[in-house]
Amino acid sequence: MATSEPRATGGDQDPNSANLRPPSTSTTLEFITQASFLLPFPSPLLDLLPAKNGEEPTLQFLLEVVDILTNYVKKTFDRSTKVLDFHHPHQLLEGIEGFNLELSDQPESLEQILVDCRDTLKYGVRTGHPRFFNQLSSGLDIIGLAGEWLTSTANTNMFTYEIAPVFVLMEQLTLKKMREMIGWPNGEGDGLFSPGGAISNMYSVMIARYKYFPEVKTKGMSAAPRLVLFTSEHSHYSIKKAGAALGFGTDNVILLSTDERGRVIPADLEAKVIDAKQKGYVPLFVNATAGSTVYGAFDPINEIADICEKYNLWLHVDGAWGGGLLMSRKHRHKLSGIERANSVTWNPHKMMGVPLQCSAILVREKGILAGCNSMCAGYLFQPDKQYDVTYDTGDKAIQCGRHVDIFKFWLMWKAKGTVGFEQHIDKCLDLSQYLYNKIKNREGYKMVFDGVPQHTNVCFWYIPPSLRGMPDGEERREKLHRVAPKIKAMMMESGTTMVGYQPQGNKVNFFRMVVSNPAATQSDIDFLIDELERLGHDL
Amino acid sequence: MATSEPRATGGDQDPNSANLRPPSTSTTLEFITQASFLLPFPSPLLDLLPAKNGEEPTLQFLLEVVDILTNYVKKTFDRSTKVLDFHHPHQLLEGIEGFNLELSDQPESLEQILVDCRDTLKYGVRTGHPRFFNQLSSGLDIIGLAGEWLTSTANTNMFTYEIAPVFVLMEQLTLKKMREMIGWPNGEGDGLFSPGGAISNMYSVMIARYKYFPEVKTKGMSAAPRLVLFTSEHSHYSIKKAGAALGFGTDNVILLSTDERGRVIPADLEAKVIDAKQKGYVPLFVNATAGSTVYGAFDPINEIADICEKYNLWLHVDGAWGGGLLMSRKHRHKLSGIERANSVTWNPHKMMGVPLQCSAILVREKGILAGCNSMCAGYLFQPDKQYDVTYDTGDKAIQCGRHVDIFKFWLMWKAKGTVGFEQHIDKCLDLSQYLYNKIKNREGYKMVFDGVPQHTNVCFWYIPPSLRGMPDGEERREKLHRVAPKIKAMMMESGTTMVGYQPQGNKVNFFRMVVSNPAATQSDIDFLIDELERLGHDL
Repeated sequence: MATSEPRATGGDQDPNSANLRPPSTSTTLEFITQASFLLPFPSPLLDLLPAKNGEEPTLQFLLEVVDILTNYVKKTFDRSTKVLDFHHPHQLLEGIEGFNLELSDQPESLEQILVDCRDTLKYGVRTGHPRFFNQLSSGLDIIGLAGEWLTSTANTNMFTYEIAPVFVLMEQLTLKKMREMIGWPNGEGDGLFSPGGAISNMYSVMIARYKYFPEVKTKGMSAAPRLVLFTSEHSHYSIKKAGAALGFGTDNVILLSTDERGRVIPADLEAKVIDAKQKGYVPLFVNATAGSTVYGAFDPINEIADICEKYNLWLHVDGAWGGGLLMSRKHRHKLSGIERANSVTWNPHKMMGVPLQCSAILVREKGILAGCNSMCAGYLFQPDKQYDVTYDTGDKAIQCGRHVDIFKFWLMWKAKGTVGFEQHIDKCLDLSQYLYNKIKNREGYKMVFDGVPQHTNVCFWYIPPSLRGMPDGEERREKLHRVAPKIKAMMMESGTTMVGYQPQGNKVNFFRMVVSNPAATQSDIDFLIDELERLGHDL
Repeated sequence: MATSEPRATGGDQDPNSANLRPPSTSTTLEFITQASFLLPFPSPLLDLLPAKNGEEPTLQFLLEVVDILTNYVKKTFDRSTKVLDFHHPHQLLEGIEGFNLELSDQPESLEQILVDCRDTLKYGVRTGHPRFFNQLSSGLDIIGLAGEWLTSTANTNMFTYEIAPVFVLMEQLTLKKMREMIGWPNGEGDGLFSPGGAISNMYSVMIARYKYFPEVKTKGMSAAPRLVLFTSEHSHYSIKKAGAALGFGTDNVILLSTDERGRVIPADLEAKVIDAKQKGYVPLFVNATAGSTVYGAFDPINEIADICEKYNLWLHVDGAWGGGLLMSRKHRHKLSGIERANSVTWNPHKMMGVPLQCSAILVREKGILAGCNSMCAGYLFQPDKQYDVTYDTGDKAIQCGRHVDIFKFWLMWKAKGTVGFEQHIDKCLDLSQYLYNKIKNREGYKMVFDGVPQHTNVCFWYIPPSLRGMPDGEERREKLHRVAPKIKAMMMESGTTMVGYQPQGNKVNFFRMVVSNPAATQSDIDFLIDELERLGHDL
């Protein structure tokens, strides 16, 4: 079997790293103490389990990997480490500093595999870094990480109790707790963890359709009248994607107007429902967003629920981003009325810091998920098993195999308690308010909307000195539109911090700060402001 | 913060485990050598990173977790360990041996978290055990496991190059290699890793519809005529699920007849296409299965492709289970004609032993995935980024966030080379042929279909002595139908092995053996046969 010398890793390799050096002393880990390490480090892949006598090389290899990972974890929280070491695609594809992404017919040595692991982390982005503010999901929770390591070691599938007994029960209990927090009586209802908020939202549209037009399952959309969905112009694009995928068509996803804070105007919803009915269409579904992606806005759920009840519409609440606030006694009022929803999307992998992916679709009516999706495959869901097969979840899902997303979340809940999530959320909201207070009247900043943000989203323009005296008009707009992308590019080149930007409606590019990482502190907010001004001052 | 004494774990706790004992000696791992361990083991959650001085407790905690996991890995390959320790749902819910699944408002101690981790593994199923034959996905690849540990430590998201530069490129290069193996010229085309074969199959139906009726994206299914999909009666139920979800309706998913080996009869496809057209429906899409779930059958792709070309239909090949055979020079002929497909599903997490989840949807026409799914969300896919934004993959997907499924697969390919996958596949097919040869004429066994299996699926009835002399008829059928569930229940109670069973069509419950775990050997097949006979002898 051909093996090759490991290629050198990048220039900043830690000279103290134990990588590639054979362990030489005993440790407390049982596995290590049982192993007598031999020089040289095992090279052929055939040495690892299930190979005969594969235990020692397997342990040695895994511990080397863990050494790489724990070093990465340590550096992730170290503010003297960059958030990223940016390279363009063509640079990485050309094989920078010996890091070769191409796959080959022949195996690599284990030493090279370890180098590949180091390089993969080196050229990636530290999403757990206290100064990474780029996405709604950030942070690196140590308990959640341990949960993911265990999940991948257990390597099973959620579709049946038979092969995932513990995880299936954990999912059931956790979903019940989440439904209790939503406020559905006794936490009754149904639900699943799905591969992300977009799929959870897609579920909500599917089950709404099944509730009102169950014949669509067998006969298709031609069995239903022209159905219309309603969602905010500020809502997540996944509602439109679901409309396209499920056969409604994006033209039948009606966008609702919002106030200056990005919240749906209930009167606009009612007007558009009436308009659709007058055209002969059938209003089916309303999505209320609890925590919009850009503004962090919470739609007024109670007022929307009144309209849904009046016109007999399915009410879904997309709390992918804002659902976490239900854990906070101080902030949960922002979702007031959520207990009136028929379904809820809630992503613990966003505001609650659970590792990716962890998204729940929660449904008030029990049995409707199965009714909508079941196909009763005999080879998987045998009714004559020896246990209570109502615990098999697979036939409720549009997936067959389903990744175990529950364990890390369950373990974090165990470790933090509900109170720990509450502290996490309150802290992040406090920190974004700190940012807001700091920049709302600061020279060179303009807020995109007025008032204290509802969520951790703080949206603002940074206005370089060269634009501050310029009269408002097309030229200034065009120049300002280019400021955020330029600063972002410089941030990424220097690797010091990351924050997102985007245009919205007729508003030119602005920054959207979000905080979901409990590692971030006021000093990181101060750093961000300094960095914006350092990079943007001369634009 | 309230903490409690850790509850005892189950009875078989290893007395040599280092768990809960503080490390006391130095090790070679850099992190350990830097840490001076203090008694007692850190208890409050607040000690872990990002807490001040959190490095040492974090390392200590993670190493304790790794100790639990490496012990589990070691035992997984140990044939003296049970495959599972079965308990009914109510037993686990009642809190067996102190294992409490309920979530609480207050945090647990770190010691208790470690106990929870041990218990979670204890009451789970060892899907990597050499005698676990229950699912198409089995085994525990050490390199793949390391890849998953790294993936969860990196904790990022596939939607943009910006936050997943290395993983995005790995996905691109790996998909190209897969397309080359399919036989598309220069490996051109498109693709994505999706959350499982059912979603990959759903993609294929979506893009077929978009190709022929792009206006459905905006106008919905009412803009298209009555569209019909074709798939084998032996195919995976996800095609029907996609038909239901996407608004076609399951009545418009036409099931094709198969021969005695479970392969589609091309003449039946053509007859049904003609029949649909005569009824005024529009045939759109044909799914050919490469490796059916129960029989492991490969539909004759070339003959099906001829019909698809003749009638201008989209050809999808569902190679979720059989796609891996493309890696084997000996077996890839079974997928002959796959290069004529418009799209292919291929799950490396099945036959190639990659940890769950890892499923690819591959598409011959470039750009059609984006055409079908893009919504151009400005906040995520800004056109004015500093890098080449064609590397951003998010708008091709129906998901927004997308889990990093590529790294473990890429790393395994690096470590094994293509030749390593070939060896794995050839070995598993040899082993299933060993089983087939051993039981085909053995007393008490009857094969469900004649001839050497095409894949590793070996389908058979075990006939207990009490039924062997009984004349064929309804009474014998009913009794035989109950044999497999009874044996399976006893297997699970004794925890010695696991193998699946199901009815199919008018055939009563039979066993479906599959081999995808390279840890399995002839001795494990012998064991399975002995165990079947031991448990089933007196039924």
